[in-house]
Amino acid sequence: MMGYKQVIVVRVDLRMSRGKLAAQAAHAACEASERAREERPQYWRRWREEGAKKVVVSVESEEELLEVYEEAGRRGLPRALIRDAGLTELPPGTLTAAAVGPAPEEKVDEVTGGLRLLR
Amino acid sequence: MMGYKQVIVVRVDLRMSRGKLAAQAAHAACEASERAREERPQYWRRWREEGAKKVVVSVESEEELLEVYEEAGRRGLPRALIRDAGLTELPPGTLTAAAVGPAPEEKVDEVTGGLRLLR
Repeated sequence: MMGYKQVIVVRVDLRMSRGKLAAQAAHAACEASERAREERPQYWRRWREEGAKKVVVSVESEEELLEVYEEAGRRGLPRALIRDAGLTELPPGTLTAAAVGPAPEEKVDEVTGGLRLLR
Repeated sequence: MMGYKQVIVVRVDLRMSRGKLAAQAAHAACEASERAREERPQYWRRWREEGAKKVVVSVESEEELLEVYEEAGRRGLPRALIRDAGLTELPPGTLTAAAVGPAPEEKVDEVTGGLRLLR
């Protein structure tokens, strides 16, 4: 059986606190999930039935984050890009995180497979 | 105008990696959001229109996590409780995170107001 997953991509170069980082990851995850529910309901349903697998990976710059987001778009995958309002730790408008999927694992891996797991 | 928010509650006593913690926070956020979409669509819609505010706070034990989750249930707020499958860092079945809301801020604060922001 083909599995489904969502990959959440966060910028570690911003040196966000754990709480800030987790909030940005949650924003990206929920937005991309909602996008999938609307545009790819079959992906969304299967993914949730399987436990809504989520993996968090890191990038080191805004440029890398945008590359991932744009590549997901070119491949027609559900995606989200998060811009922080900048009320707390970051300058307003900072791009902090993105998410790719839910989608079949191998399709997501074609976009995010080279990225490092966030430890 | 009354604002809306979601509070994500994570256990810091488990000493999860940043990536694991962010994934658990994302699970809790998406599940509680989905619950709200189904059960409290007016909360869900307003919250999203306002930018889907999310705040991450910490607890130090499973007992504290369950207290928050149960109190949210007694007050009829959208909520979620996340149990980790335990494939990686944690024993299977470990309760890792919860979320309360989206709901009006003061209703959420009645449940989570005493908890520490995760830094």
